[in-house]
Parts: sequence; structure tokens; C-alpha cells
Amino acid sequence: MSLNDVKVIAFDADDTLWENENFFRDAEREFCRVMSEYESYDNLMMELFKVEIQNLELYGYGVKAFILSLIETALKVSDRKVRPEQIEAIVAIGKEMLEEDVVLLDSIVDLLDKLYGKYRLVVATKGDLLDQERKLKKSGLLKYFHHIEIMTHKKQENYLELLNHLDIPAEQLLMVGNSLKSDVLPVIELGGYAAHIPYHTTWLFEQMNPEDIKSDRFFELKQIHDVLDLFS
Amino acid sequence: MSLNDVKVIAFDADDTLWENENFFRDAEREFCRVMSEYESYDNLMMELFKVEIQNLELYGYGVKAFILSLIETALKVSDRKVRPEQIEAIVAIGKEMLEEDVVLLDSIVDLLDKLYGKYRLVVATKGDLLDQERKLKKSGLLKYFHHIEIMTHKKQENYLELLNHLDIPAEQLLMVGNSLKSDVLPVIELGGYAAHIPYHTTWLFEQMNPEDIKSDRFFELKQIHDVLDLFS
Repeated sequence: MSLNDVKVIAFDADDTLWENENFFRDAEREFCRVMSEYESYDNLMMELFKVEIQNLELYGYGVKAFILSLIETALKVSDRKVRPEQIEAIVAIGKEMLEEDVVLLDSIVDLLDKLYGKYRLVVATKGDLLDQERKLKKSGLLKYFHHIEIMTHKKQENYLELLNHLDIPAEQLLMVGNSLKSDVLPVIELGGYAAHIPYHTTWLFEQMNPEDIKSDRFFELKQIHDVLDLFS
Repeated sequence: MSLNDVKVIAFDADDTLWENENFFRDAEREFCRVMSEYESYDNLMMELFKVEIQNLELYGYGVKAFILSLIETALKVSDRKVRPEQIEAIVAIGKEMLEEDVVLLDSIVDLLDKLYGKYRLVVATKGDLLDQERKLKKSGLLKYFHHIEIMTHKKQENYLELLNHLDIPAEQLLMVGNSLKSDVLPVIELGGYAAHIPYHTTWLFEQMNPEDIKSDRFFELKQIHDVLDLFS
């Protein structure tokens, strides 16, 4: 078994093909500015994180879930004193996020050009269906992908479904992404290959230590374009 | 070309397999109760509809989109005087909707039992990915379906993608649903078959006149179980 068996390369989209997490960081900063009269930045962020984790199962991932959690946090930290203009500002933060342009990561187009035709390229990403489809369309990258899988979670069972849809065994899959927890660990556990490219910011919930993953099917890379080196 | 060519039966889920729209009607009534000091029921509903249509492209379908539109409507109709407890009540309406049990329509299980094995059964539904997956799991119907397609829109291009995924020509598809606009018209235009089963309540945005659809591939049925009669 070796990387020569790989037939499908799956990319996480957010922070692997295009920038994403920094838009959430910007939005959080804006939220803290709007709510600064009630709590410090650190406390606001801590309360927001608690609310997001509590809501994760019910709301899932994506901008709409995030905004609903911001509103709930605003009610909570202000002890129900938040003003309508502040709620309005939070709703506006969400709309801006949804209207944001897609910013591709460096050399993505060159990488996809070089892999296209040699491998079946797919997107395997979690998040809100509409958000992700919109970003794919805006990105101009749709033509490279044979299949788009938008997943509610990225656990082993979800990757099993993906392998089913692709009709391949795990050892023919290389998953490329920025989250050890969501993109690497479950794929390695299933017997597939995974490459991790850290992004400069990772949501607290997704953080884990790369040293906790011990496998010769796991590759730690510096930047997305290094995926090519795996096959050279 | 006849119904004998049909190999795949696709069901819209909301209000075709299980009740959905009435949960939105209940939520709207609760919203109007919470906001009754600002506007009449009719005016609140009219403002809500305007906001929902304005947000449709940005937010898409589903409960989270709906709640964000309720909050925006509350800000608007109260002239930014809405109180935090009222916003909190609206957020709670959304959480209740997401936690609601799935109520199957009459005789769905019997229908699916009788069709299963003779046709490839699929779900082709629009809405929020997480909402729809949750409802499918809660429904206990997952075992009947060969494929689940959750669509951001239900226009011709989206059905073309579905046909692509299913690898069949349009004349092998029978689409079954409660919306003439989303479930019937685009499928008929592509050359497929469609059965319409009206539900007692239809969102204003989805309303159209069945007499506007003239095709011998279109069937108007009274209840979901009558799908069997098409093939007898």
C-alpha cells in the first residue's frame, strides 16, 4: 500500500482552497466592538464559544448558525439589556459575511491544473449547503471537481458515506485539509491517506496536536502546493 | 414514452413524506403573538413575507434562515423598539422548531413498502442540509432510499444535476411533491413525470395554479398513497 494507490484527492474547501476562518475572526472582532460596553473581549469570546458549542448539534456549521449564536451571546452577556441597534448590527455582520468575495489561497489554480486529469478531484467540506455552493461558484474552481460532498459532520461515518459515493476503498483516498480533527484523523483511522496544511488560524473547537497522529499515511505539509511533492 | 419507463421515484420530503409547513405556520402565529403590540397579524405576516423574499437568495431555505428573517422583521415592524425578551422569544421559537418530532404523513410507510425493490426511491428536497438530514434520521425512512439529494434550489438546472447523479434520462424519473412550482414544473419541462399532491397549506412563495401546467406527464393526486394507482 502506497500513495501510488491514490485515485481520488479530496479537498476541504474552507482554509484549504480559500480563506474562511479569518472572516469569522473579523466578524468576532466586530461583534466584540459592538458589545464592548458589557464585557471584555476575552469574556465575550469565551461566552460566544460556549454558546456555539451548545448550539452545534442543533444549528450545525456556517454563517447563519454563527449569527444566531452571536445574537444569543449578546442577550446573555448584556443580561438581556442589548439594544435593538446592536442586534441590527449583528444581523448586518452576518449579511456581510455571506456577501464576502472568495479569496483563493496562493497557487490553488496551479495546483489543481497540475492534478486535474491525473486524479479524480473532489471537494469534501462541512458547513451550510448554500454557503458552500455559493463560495464554489464564486471561486471559479467548480470545473476542476468531479464531485462535491457537503457534509454535516466529518466523522468516520461521514467519510464512509463519501467513500461509498465515490465507490472506492479508503486506501485510494487522499484527504487534504487544515483540520487534524476533521480532515485527518477520521480518514487515517479508516485506512486512507491524509495531508494536513495548517492555516494561520484554527477555530478553538478544531484544535488538536499533530503529534497525536501517528501513521505513515499522514503527511504534515507547509502549504497547499506541497501536495504535488507527495506524488513526485 | 409512458409511466412504464419510470425507474426512479423521487419524493420531496417536506409535506410529502412528513409534515413541515404547519410547523412554520405555528411559528408564525407565535411570532405574531410575541409582536402583537406593534402591528396586526396581517401586517406582521406581510412584512415577514417581504423580508423572507428579500433574504431568500442570501439565506436560502430552512429554519435558521426563517429565524433570522423573523428577527429582522421584529426590528423593522417595531421601528427598532423590540425588547430583548422578544428577541429571546423568537430565538426560542427557532430552537423548538429544530427539536420538533417528525410527523409522517398518512400511509407513507405502506406506500414505500410497496414501491421498495420495484423502483429506485430517492429523496429530492430543498432546505437546510442539517435540518433535512436530522428529519430523515428521526423519520425512520432512511432505509427505503437509495439516494438523498438536498438541493439549494429546485429549478431545471438543479434537476439536471440530480438526473446526472442518478445517471438516468428525464423520462425515467417520476417526481412526487406538494409544490407545483418546485416539484412539478421544472421536471415536466425537462421531459420527466411529476405527481402533485397538494398539502393543506402552501407557503405563499410556492403557490401557483395547477391549470397552468398542461402535460400528459403531469398527474394531480389527492393523497400521497395514490402514487400506487399510477402504476396499477
